[in-house]
Amino acid sequence: MPSHAIKPSVKHNTNSNTVKTLRRLINAPSVTPDDAGTIDYLAERLATLGFEYTHLDCNGVRNLVAWREFGPGPVMAFAGHVDVVPANPQGWVAHPFAAAVIDDVIYGRGAADMKGGVAAMLSATEYLCERAQQCQGTLFWLITSDEEGEAEYGSKIMAEYLAQQAIVLDACLVGEPTSHQQVGDTIKNGRRGAISGRIQISGKAGHVAYPEQTINAAHIAGELVNELANISWWKDVLGSQTSLQVTGLTVPDIVDNLVPASCEITFNVRYSHAYKSQEIYQIVAQALAPWHDNVTVQWERPCESYYTGGRGSACFLNLVEQAILRVRGQFPALSTAGGTSDGRFFASSETQVIECGVKNDSIHQVNEHVSVADLHAIEEIYRAILCDYFVV
Amino acid sequence: MPSHAIKPSVKHNTNSNTVKTLRRLINAPSVTPDDAGTIDYLAERLATLGFEYTHLDCNGVRNLVAWREFGPGPVMAFAGHVDVVPANPQGWVAHPFAAAVIDDVIYGRGAADMKGGVAAMLSATEYLCERAQQCQGTLFWLITSDEEGEAEYGSKIMAEYLAQQAIVLDACLVGEPTSHQQVGDTIKNGRRGAISGRIQISGKAGHVAYPEQTINAAHIAGELVNELANISWWKDVLGSQTSLQVTGLTVPDIVDNLVPASCEITFNVRYSHAYKSQEIYQIVAQALAPWHDNVTVQWERPCESYYTGGRGSACFLNLVEQAILRVRGQFPALSTAGGTSDGRFFASSETQVIECGVKNDSIHQVNEHVSVADLHAIEEIYRAILCDYFVV
Ligand SMILES: [Zn+2]
Ligand SMILES: [Zn+2]
Repeated sequence: MPSHAIKPSVKHNTNSNTVKTLRRLINAPSVTPDDAGTIDYLAERLATLGFEYTHLDCNGVRNLVAWREFGPGPVMAFAGHVDVVPANPQGWVAHPFAAAVIDDVIYGRGAADMKGGVAAMLSATEYLCERAQQCQGTLFWLITSDEEGEAEYGSKIMAEYLAQQAIVLDACLVGEPTSHQQVGDTIKNGRRGAISGRIQISGKAGHVAYPEQTINAAHIAGELVNELANISWWKDVLGSQTSLQVTGLTVPDIVDNLVPASCEITFNVRYSHAYKSQEIYQIVAQALAPWHDNVTVQWERPCESYYTGGRGSACFLNLVEQAILRVRGQFPALSTAGGTSDGRFFASSETQVIECGVKNDSIHQVNEHVSVADLHAIEEIYRAILCDYFVV
Repeated sequence: MPSHAIKPSVKHNTNSNTVKTLRRLINAPSVTPDDAGTIDYLAERLATLGFEYTHLDCNGVRNLVAWREFGPGPVMAFAGHVDVVPANPQGWVAHPFAAAVIDDVIYGRGAADMKGGVAAMLSATEYLCERAQQCQGTLFWLITSDEEGEAEYGSKIMAEYLAQQAIVLDACLVGEPTSHQQVGDTIKNGRRGAISGRIQISGKAGHVAYPEQTINAAHIAGELVNELANISWWKDVLGSQTSLQVTGLTVPDIVDNLVPASCEITFNVRYSHAYKSQEIYQIVAQALAPWHDNVTVQWERPCESYYTGGRGSACFLNLVEQAILRVRGQFPALSTAGGTSDGRFFASSETQVIECGVKNDSIHQVNEHVSVADLHAIEEIYRAILCDYFVV
């Protein structure tokens, strides 16, 4: 795909369409899983740009799948979410759903995570559609209102729908906030997997004065915690580390003179794409093997890892990197750090997923915000990516 | 002191004075610290045997100090308690305070721990007093109603009173249940000390995805538990082992994706007479030293150890052993095992303390009991000890 000339956008225009869209989205108190009307709003906006769409509603969650086919060619998706984490107005410079603009900064819950990304994606899509005659391929929009929660009925459902329809995405750009100091300085080409575990230790209770007649579950817990915390994750590659953190230790019904018969250990594993969840189960089971008579493990909330590597000139990662270099003057850093993301639902051997968005330093916090300049900067990056991808 | 001929007592006389006294004591629901009238009852019984007495009442606890001076000579005490642990009637063959006699066995809370011992001590004292003309020395009775609880206002108060009065006990026999298979098969010539500790670990909380920015209090807890459980108590001598048992582990406010900032470890140390509590503090502090930035320890409920060794022919331990050999046909085993006892309050370089009583297999349990035969057997041992000690 040839590169395309981008007009420098006007900075600090606090009245731009993108700012208006973002403020409109922030005004809707779409705390997970409530979309608060934002899904319909986006569907209508996309419809006026020539998109078809369908709603995938599931267990109170609203999902939007929209698409515009410009012609034969590759299939790319913009993916994201409209739901936000709750916001207690205390400590905010303005109400978290007021979308106040103060000194060229837009404050509001979701401003950075990720209604800013959605607004910029919409403006960039508009820009692309004005050039539809020059385009080939199909652009999808995949928007959920269930990302910040358990994510059971959101992107997962949309990915299943695409598979049922035999639609294969070649590329997927997730507009999550990934930048650190400057917009575009960091993108994510993968995410670690995550899984929680719960270990029940059963020993034998008894009086502390007769320890030889007991099996002290707390002592076993000490050994297990050491074993778990010191597992060697030798398959890790540079830049993506696996880590097991014990999150809880509980001896129920503690009595001063009683050797405890049971103890619960909870832990969480964040694992690099060098591992699959099945391997995590096996490695942990192996670590616990010496205590197998006294220990049971239960696994909870598995989230697989994903990774998009560089694969030559046709590679989407390469396209995104080049677009950012052109717009921002330097290559982005690649990262797979941080929590899980919905990118895992779309990534596959056929689909390259990249996450790229505004700065993430204020997300989920009091006074979450995005500057007007940053909003326009990410819009410019999205425009460049779309044009490079679709304009022939 | 010369040995004294003992008449074989009649076995299985379920109507003996000793059985009657025991049943009277069991009928009083003297759950700690309530003596339920038993202190007055014993004071009156002893008064009719020529004893003087004083009550040491302290913080709702009743204590009885009674004595009879037969003439100049050594001072020995019978020590014990009338309080019992609570009893839920469910599962009992008869109400726990009914003192039912079924097939020559007396059932009831305190039957073994230690109203049986108190009843046998009283019958043996009666037997001795019938021979008062042949006796030298002074016999004390030291009875509390606060042994099963915190023991703050019981034997400790009586020991302080004796010290104030400049009364030095040469020997003290505590009638706690010490026997295993047969009455007299085991006596205690010491008890281990006990102390509880509480460790607060403070780390640094953070998201599990960024462990490098955290200090995981649960991981430190794992290391500490291993360290504590593996302390080498090299000063222990054969037969009395020091043991540290972790009794509780608590991470407060467990969150699945949060590295915990704090964890509490509770533990209990039972230590042999080779150690004093001050040494225990130091040894544990040394074990925790590598984590001193993140750890504080708080000590609770210290109980010192005591030990009565053999000291030649004038030794009280020797006297008790010989008396048991004569009555039961074999020497008792010496033990310092088990929980703490009030013996620690009376033991000193001047006072030799021995614990000797009925079988302890049913104490604190449903259907606590003592057989009539065992009750008479311990009475016979107490008689022999008293006669050997006082009759000239
Ligand atoms: Zn997000
Ligand atoms: Zn007792």
